[in-house]
Amino acid sequence: MQPLQLNCDMGESFGAWTMGMDEAVMPHVHSANIACGFHASDPSTMRRTVALAVQHGVLIGAHPAYPDLVGFGRRSMACSAQEVEDLLLYQLGALDGICRAEGASLSYVKPHGALYNDMMKQPALLTAVMRAVARFNPQLPLMLLARRDNSEAEQLAAEQGIGLLFEAFADRGYDPDGYLLPRNQPGAVHHDPERILAQALSFARGEPISASDGSQLTLRADSLCVHGDNAESVAVVARIRAALDAL
Amino acid sequence: MQPLQLNCDMGESFGAWTMGMDEAVMPHVHSANIACGFHASDPSTMRRTVALAVQHGVLIGAHPAYPDLVGFGRRSMACSAQEVEDLLLYQLGALDGICRAEGASLSYVKPHGALYNDMMKQPALLTAVMRAVARFNPQLPLMLLARRDNSEAEQLAAEQGIGLLFEAFADRGYDPDGYLLPRNQPGAVHHDPERILAQALSFARGEPISASDGSQLTLRADSLCVHGDNAESVAVVARIRAALDAL
Amino acid sequence: MQPLQLNCDMGESFGAWTMGMDEAVMPHVHSANIACGFHASDPSTMRRTVALAVQHGVLIGAHPAYPDLVGFGRRSMACSAQEVEDLLLYQLGALDGICRAEGASLSYVKPHGALYNDMMKQPALLTAVMRAVARFNPQLPLMLLARRDNSEAEQLAAEQGIGLLFEAFADRGYDPDGYLLPRNQPGAVHHDPERILAQALSFARGEPISASDGSQLTLRADSLCVHGDNAESVAVVARIRAALDAL
Amino acid sequence: MQPLQLNCDMGESFGAWTMGMDEAVMPHVHSANIACGFHASDPSTMRRTVALAVQHGVLIGAHPAYPDLVGFGRRSMACSAQEVEDLLLYQLGALDGICRAEGASLSYVKPHGALYNDMMKQPALLTAVMRAVARFNPQLPLMLLARRDNSEAEQLAAEQGIGLLFEAFADRGYDPDGYLLPRNQPGAVHHDPERILAQALSFARGEPISASDGSQLTLRADSLCVHGDNAESVAVVARIRAALDAL
Repeated sequence: MQPLQLNCDMGESFGAWTMGMDEAVMPHVHSANIACGFHASDPSTMRRTVALAVQHGVLIGAHPAYPDLVGFGRRSMACSAQEVEDLLLYQLGALDGICRAEGASLSYVKPHGALYNDMMKQPALLTAVMRAVARFNPQLPLMLLARRDNSEAEQLAAEQGIGLLFEAFADRGYDPDGYLLPRNQPGAVHHDPERILAQALSFARGEPISASDGSQLTLRADSLCVHGDNAESVAVVARIRAALDAL
Repeated sequence: MQPLQLNCDMGESFGAWTMGMDEAVMPHVHSANIACGFHASDPSTMRRTVALAVQHGVLIGAHPAYPDLVGFGRRSMACSAQEVEDLLLYQLGALDGICRAEGASLSYVKPHGALYNDMMKQPALLTAVMRAVARFNPQLPLMLLARRDNSEAEQLAAEQGIGLLFEAFADRGYDPDGYLLPRNQPGAVHHDPERILAQALSFARGEPISASDGSQLTLRADSLCVHGDNAESVAVVARIRAALDAL
Repeated sequence: MQPLQLNCDMGESFGAWTMGMDEAVMPHVHSANIACGFHASDPSTMRRTVALAVQHGVLIGAHPAYPDLVGFGRRSMACSAQEVEDLLLYQLGALDGICRAEGASLSYVKPHGALYNDMMKQPALLTAVMRAVARFNPQLPLMLLARRDNSEAEQLAAEQGIGLLFEAFADRGYDPDGYLLPRNQPGAVHHDPERILAQALSFARGEPISASDGSQLTLRADSLCVHGDNAESVAVVARIRAALDAL
Repeated sequence: MQPLQLNCDMGESFGAWTMGMDEAVMPHVHSANIACGFHASDPSTMRRTVALAVQHGVLIGAHPAYPDLVGFGRRSMACSAQEVEDLLLYQLGALDGICRAEGASLSYVKPHGALYNDMMKQPALLTAVMRAVARFNPQLPLMLLARRDNSEAEQLAAEQGIGLLFEAFADRGYDPDGYLLPRNQPGAVHHDPERILAQALSFARGEPISASDGSQLTLRADSLCVHGDNAESVAVVARIRAALDAL
C-alpha cells in the first residue's frame, strides 16, 4: 500500500485579492491543486504558485472549475458535457503553459467545487471530465472522492483509459455510502484537531471510521485533502504530516 | 526564398456571438491565428476552430491578446512586462490544450490587436512576449510586422533563442519605414481588390511597393495577413491564393 | 381590454459582436427588453439601444440575467435568492443609469433566459426577483409567462406590492397548463408565418388556442414576445403589428 | 470654511475574496467611496457595504473604474471618451440601484485608480467623466485631487453644470504643483502616524505643507482620503478623526 499523501487547494488568490496561506502550507503537503483562472487565480498568481510548488518539490495538480469567478466555482451551472470537456481542456492547457515556464509539469487533475460535486453525482459529467483528461494526457490520473463503492467511476475511467486517485477528508463527516455529509448537517465538519488527526490516521492505516449512522466505513484513499485557509488549519496540516511521516 | 504564405485571424466568435466567415476562408489560407479567449473566443469555439484548421491542413498559430473581451483586445492596457509574459503563457497553453484534443499542435504565435501594436513600439513589451514564447516552446516562431529595418526585433529574438516570421499587409498603406499608416490617414486602407492583389504579388516577388511619401519600400515577408470578415474579403483572399499558387 | 402589445429582446450585441436586427425591428414593437450587461450588452451598446428606443417611442424594459456572458444567460446557475435579488438590483440600476443620459426611464422588468425559466418554476426565485423589483421601484411591473393559472404569481406579486404583465408567444407550442413546450419536442416552435400570425390574433382577441393535447387553452396576455434575430423574423413582426393595429 | 471630511475606499471585496477592514473603519469616516463592480465588488458586496454605510450615517460616493477586475482598475486602458462616459453611467446606476434597496442614495462620485489618475492628466477624459455625472445627476459633485491650481477642472465642471469636491492625502508627499509624488520616489508615502496626523491637521486648518522642493504648498481640500486596509491604517484614521473633531 502506498502511504497516504496530502493534497491542498492552492493558488486561489486573484489579482489584488489574497486567499489562503500558500507559503505556510506548501512545505507540508505532497501535492498542490492549483486553480486555473476560472473560479480563482490569474496567470501571474498561477506562475508564482507553480514556482512555489517547484521550490518545495510538491506535485502539481490542475484544479479546473466552472467559469464562475464571482461565485468561486461553488454554484452548479447547467453546462453541457461538451462545454465541460472543452473548458477542462482549456484550463489544463493554461496551467500546463505556466508550468512549462517553471520547468514543471502536471501530475494529476482534480476538479473544483460545484464541478467536483456535480461530477460525483452525474456520470455524464464525470465522463466529460474524463474525456478531457484522456484527450489532454491519458497519463494524468483524475482525483475524486473515495466512496464505499467506486466501481462506476473505475469502469468509466477504464473506458477512457485514465487512472484514478481517491481522496478522503479528515475533517468531514461521512454518510454510510462514503459521501460527505452536507455542511448544514450536524457532524458534517470536524473542528477538533485531535478528531481530525485521528480520522487522518484511520485512513492512512486502512482502518474504518464511523459513518453518520454509526456503521463502519472503510475508504481506500490515496490522498487526504487538507486546507491552508488560516493559521489554525495550517497547524493541523503540519501535525497530520508529521504523524503520517512517523507511521 | 520560401513562397509567401497567407495567415488569417480565426475563431473570433464568442459564445452566442458569431464573427468572421471561418468556414469560407479556411480553405484558402496556410495558417490560422486562433483567438485564445482573452479578446475573443471561448473553449468550445476554440475546439471547433482547431478542428476546422486540422480538417483543411492549415497551420495553427496562437493569437493571444490583452484581457479585454468587451474591447476586443483593441485598447492598450498598461500591463507590466511580467503580466504580459504570464498572460501569454496562459493563452498559449490554453490553445495547446485544445489542440491536443484534436491531435494538433501550435506552429507559431502572433499577438493580437493592441498587444501587437504595442510590442512593435515597445522593446520591453516585445521582449516579454518573446520570453513567453521561448519559455513555452522555443521551437515556435513569433510572427510580427515586417518593416524596412527588422534588426532590433531580430536581435531580441536571437537573445531569447526563438525564430521570427514576418508578415505584410496587402490591403494597407505603408510609411517609408515600413509601418502601417494609421487608419485615420488617407491611403491607410486599400479597398480596390486589384490594388490589393497587386500589392500581394509585389510582396510575393520580393518587389518594392510605394510608401506614403512615394519612396520605394521593399519588405521581406514570410506571410501575408488576410481577412475573412465578410464575403467580399473572402473573395479577395481566394484570388490572392490563386495568384500566389500560380507564381 | 388593453390591446395586445409587442415586446422584443434588444441590445444583445456585445462589444465588437453584433446580434439581432434592432434597427429594423424597433419601429414595429411597443416595448424593448434591453440587456443589462450580464448575459449580453455593454454600457455603450446599452446607450445606443436606449437611444434607439427613445427615437421610436418604444417603452424600455430591463432584461436582467444570470452572470453568464459566454453562456448568454441560458444556463441555470445555482444562485441564492439573495444573490438573485442583488444582481437584479445592480442590473436594473445600471440600465436606469444609461436611461437617464437619454432622458428615458424604465417601464417594466423582464428577466432573461435561464433566470426567466427558473423563476417560472421556483417560487423562491420568483419572490427574489419580485423583491428586487419592489425595492428598486414598485411602480415597475414584472413581465412573465402567461399560463392557464397565474394565481400563485399574482399572490406573490400582491405580497411584494408590484404589478404583473403577462406575455405570450405566437411562435411556440403550449402544453395544456400554458407552459411552453420544450424546444426538443415536436410542435414546440412554429415556423409558418401564417400559423404564427393566427396564434397572435387569437391571443389579441382573447380566443383560445389548441394546446399540445388538443385541449383549448385561453391565455390572458398583455404582451406578445417577438423576435428580431433576422430578416425573416422581422418581416413576421411587421405583419403581426399591422394585423394588431387593424383590429 | 467647511470642516475637513474623511473619505475612504470601501466595498472592495469581491465574491469569496475579502479586502479592507470596512467594518472597523466605517465608524470613523464621513463618506465611503463604494466600488461598483468594475475594479472590485459584486452586487451582494455592494449591498452589504451600502447597508453598513447607512448604519453609520456615512455618505455614499460611487467609486467607478475601468473594466479591469484582475488589474484592480490600476492599469490605464485606452478607452474612448464615449466609452468612459458610458461605463460611468452604468456603474453610477448600478450602485444607485443597490442604494435604493437600502433606502440610501448617492452623494458624490470619485473615480478609482488609473481612471482617477488619467482624468487628472487628460482634460478630454475628465470632461467625459463630468458629462456622465451631469447626465446621471447634476446634483452630484465629482471628487478629485486638490492641486495648487484647480482652475481648469473648475472651468470644465462649470461648463457641465456640476460641482466639485477636492480631496487631499495626509500620507502622501506632494510636488510643488500639488500633484502626488509617484510612489517610486523618496518621500512619496508617509509611514509615520505623527507625520500623517500633522499633515491632516495642516489641511484642516488651511495651512501650507512643504512640497518636495521645500516650497510651501497650500491646498484647499474638502475631504481627506484615508485608508482602511489594515489595523494600523484604521488606527491612524481613528486618530485623525478625533483630532479633526477636536478642532
